[in-house]
Amino acid sequence: MASSTGDRSQAVRHGLRAKVLTLDGMNPRVRRVEYAVRGPIVQRALELEQELRQAMGQRPITFLRQVLALCVNPDLLSSPNFPDDAKKRAERILQACGGHSLGAYSVSSGIQLIREDVARYIERRDGGIPADPNNVFLSTGASDAIVTVLKLLVAGEGHTRTGVLIPIPQYPLYSATLAELGAVQVDYYLDEERAWALDVAELHRALGQARDHCRPRALCVINPGNPTGQVQTRECIEAVIRFAFEERLFLLADEVYQDNVYAAGSQFHSFKKVLMEMGPPYAGQQELASFHSTSKGYMGECGFRGGYVEVVNMDAAVQQQMLKLMSVRLCPPVPGQALLDLVVSPPAPTDPSFAQFQAEKQAVLAELAAKAKLTEQVFNEAPGISCNPVQGAMYSFPRVQLPPRAVERAQELGLAPDMFFCLRLLEETGICVVPGSGFGQREGTYHFRMTILPPLEKLRLLLEKLSRFHAKFTLEYS
Amino acid sequence: MASSTGDRSQAVRHGLRAKVLTLDGMNPRVRRVEYAVRGPIVQRALELEQELRQAMGQRPITFLRQVLALCVNPDLLSSPNFPDDAKKRAERILQACGGHSLGAYSVSSGIQLIREDVARYIERRDGGIPADPNNVFLSTGASDAIVTVLKLLVAGEGHTRTGVLIPIPQYPLYSATLAELGAVQVDYYLDEERAWALDVAELHRALGQARDHCRPRALCVINPGNPTGQVQTRECIEAVIRFAFEERLFLLADEVYQDNVYAAGSQFHSFKKVLMEMGPPYAGQQELASFHSTSKGYMGECGFRGGYVEVVNMDAAVQQQMLKLMSVRLCPPVPGQALLDLVVSPPAPTDPSFAQFQAEKQAVLAELAAKAKLTEQVFNEAPGISCNPVQGAMYSFPRVQLPPRAVERAQELGLAPDMFFCLRLLEETGICVVPGSGFGQREGTYHFRMTILPPLEKLRLLLEKLSRFHAKFTLEYS
Repeated sequence: MASSTGDRSQAVRHGLRAKVLTLDGMNPRVRRVEYAVRGPIVQRALELEQELRQAMGQRPITFLRQVLALCVNPDLLSSPNFPDDAKKRAERILQACGGHSLGAYSVSSGIQLIREDVARYIERRDGGIPADPNNVFLSTGASDAIVTVLKLLVAGEGHTRTGVLIPIPQYPLYSATLAELGAVQVDYYLDEERAWALDVAELHRALGQARDHCRPRALCVINPGNPTGQVQTRECIEAVIRFAFEERLFLLADEVYQDNVYAAGSQFHSFKKVLMEMGPPYAGQQELASFHSTSKGYMGECGFRGGYVEVVNMDAAVQQQMLKLMSVRLCPPVPGQALLDLVVSPPAPTDPSFAQFQAEKQAVLAELAAKAKLTEQVFNEAPGISCNPVQGAMYSFPRVQLPPRAVERAQELGLAPDMFFCLRLLEETGICVVPGSGFGQREGTYHFRMTILPPLEKLRLLLEKLSRFHAKFTLEYS
Repeated sequence: MASSTGDRSQAVRHGLRAKVLTLDGMNPRVRRVEYAVRGPIVQRALELEQELRQAMGQRPITFLRQVLALCVNPDLLSSPNFPDDAKKRAERILQACGGHSLGAYSVSSGIQLIREDVARYIERRDGGIPADPNNVFLSTGASDAIVTVLKLLVAGEGHTRTGVLIPIPQYPLYSATLAELGAVQVDYYLDEERAWALDVAELHRALGQARDHCRPRALCVINPGNPTGQVQTRECIEAVIRFAFEERLFLLADEVYQDNVYAAGSQFHSFKKVLMEMGPPYAGQQELASFHSTSKGYMGECGFRGGYVEVVNMDAAVQQQMLKLMSVRLCPPVPGQALLDLVVSPPAPTDPSFAQFQAEKQAVLAELAAKAKLTEQVFNEAPGISCNPVQGAMYSFPRVQLPPRAVERAQELGLAPDMFFCLRLLEETGICVVPGSGFGQREGTYHFRMTILPPLEKLRLLLEKLSRFHAKFTLEYS
């Protein structure tokens, strides 16, 4: 200690010195996290996207906000300006809250009544297949629950490190979380030629290669796909479940876009339902976690950070550990829990709010479907751009041809070629799309992700402007 | 692959088999997490505490809920039942939200306007010392930000693993997070004989010992203390800052109870203010993160999960990495951000809501002060219980004498002696307190943490009942 005191006094005399926490000395796993959707380019992009939404004037669903306002300020329960069913719903939620208030912590797994409502929602969705509220855990958006389940799975060192299969292209939460946890990201490629379908042969390939250097323990599936917009067929889901069972992989099903299916012939099948209908040995044994959120669907209430995970066939002791882990963060935001409750148990046909609720919901979904179709059409008319059908979710992920000279120019600038394209697009047109390299893509192919959220006519202009920019860009570098 | 396929088919034929994710195979760090405050005993305890709060009928602060309801349901902006300043505040917040709605994601660091309001709050609190909004990051409660900063600090393996000094007794978020991150928890004991004061000689002792087996890089301080209720003097804070600077430790100041100071002669001094007033070399160099929350104070709006961290002298590149890490989780809940805005910029004296706001706030704080005093008095009248003054925060942490036979009985049952006491207390009286072993305490001493939140007369009954139970328990095991 004496010599260290001497060093210290010297350090103090020296004046300015190195920081304790530096880029070189910080958590190396955090440094490895890359998060394309929220990288520096996207800060500006996000602001632009918000301006878009604002211009769009998409109003929140009235019933949801009425009930939430009543919950936030129960003095309003005596106001004549709210429908009776909204008041009843608010009272029901408040009764289930600590101190009858959204301001109290809930238990860490979420308000019991809401877990029960979620279980009933799952049962209705899955044609009556039972769901146990004790297997439902509310979360801070879906991200929170996804990270929690991944955390449980990570173990081992070196060649025994946990490997997790994720689709490419993927939603970057997965790559970021695996990097932070020190797990091995095992890429399986979705098949762009078949509208981004998941191919079990490709799962086998990815798994076989991964077994050389890690211990694969989990398989993540995003359905409907982000960023691909693909909706999986029932046959595909069955094949994935068989694969996971045979290869002893824990299944994570990211199903946050389950209400967002637009294409004729496409239908959402939950992994839980398919698993249960497959019977033994799958139904009683295959471990599954399914995630949902209040951020997507027709409601799009991202800011409230509501979500849940349902776990199926999870080891009971592990489930206890999961609850312990959740309890460290106390509880998910209670307004988000309340909102989730409304999403999973909307007004019934006999309720005064039913007609308006249905009309608003259908209007949002119908417009999204029209915009999904429009996106595909406009992009596929543009030379050098090809776009798979946006069967579901909220994005298109078109492929763009970039001329070799543009690729060279990007390399000179130290940028991924699609990042270069997106930056130029942003600068020259103000249109913000996210480069495909942030989601992953086959070597030598280039994509971008674009949201279908702007209002129809505005979206048409954006699509056309983008297509024209691409033509100009191609010319410039040819 | 061929032989593994054979194994698989066999496994399928076998029927039931081991889970993929088991207690033995799961993340060993997660298994090591202990979280006393939310352990199994406390599930029931929490419910009881909520019933207490409910019985207490503590109403939320009117102004906060009015503005939030207006933000949630802007249709109410035309209602005559809300004061003008509440409407103006709601409009101001909504203008700063994406799409003018709480339902949109914000940027990951939080809504810029609110970061600016937080910076101005810090400046007022600290007598005009400047605060930069770019150093303020909004979070999901304070816990979220604390975990984020700790994450940045964790590096190394074996003897170079990051060590983090935390007080004992501590708030278990710290021990849980360090276990999960694989960092080394370095305990420094608060001095119960001096009302749980922090003693720099003890910091030296803890640090010296820790250097044998890890690389200490950070020092956590909780002021006002949870669970101790201690409020640090300015002299103490100066000594801690000098220590941190000389020993090259990143400082984490958990200041979530900054509005909860009750004792005559006690005053809250922020680490930021003291640091800045100490001048060079400390002011310009000592790295500090200070945390605050909407869950405590006079508002107690835990369920909204609002909070922030201000970082001081953090390396710019590390700060970018922190933002990247935050962006993986998208954004803190926007209703919590809005609530935080109201807490950091309450009604001004000229505003219509000012008088009621002040009256409600002062009533809550005055009652808390009376309950803090009462707790100390009643416990110190009870033989075998001694309780330091509750100078601040929301808990007492009295020491209880447990007879040797009770300690033996607990050991037979495989329970910590204070856990045994608390369980018996819960069973026989319905009173829920949390055993000291969950927070840490000197070997051979026993404590429990009890909230001062119940209404005064109810609290008096609880304190007396608890004291009588302790006497009975002591007799039973003597």
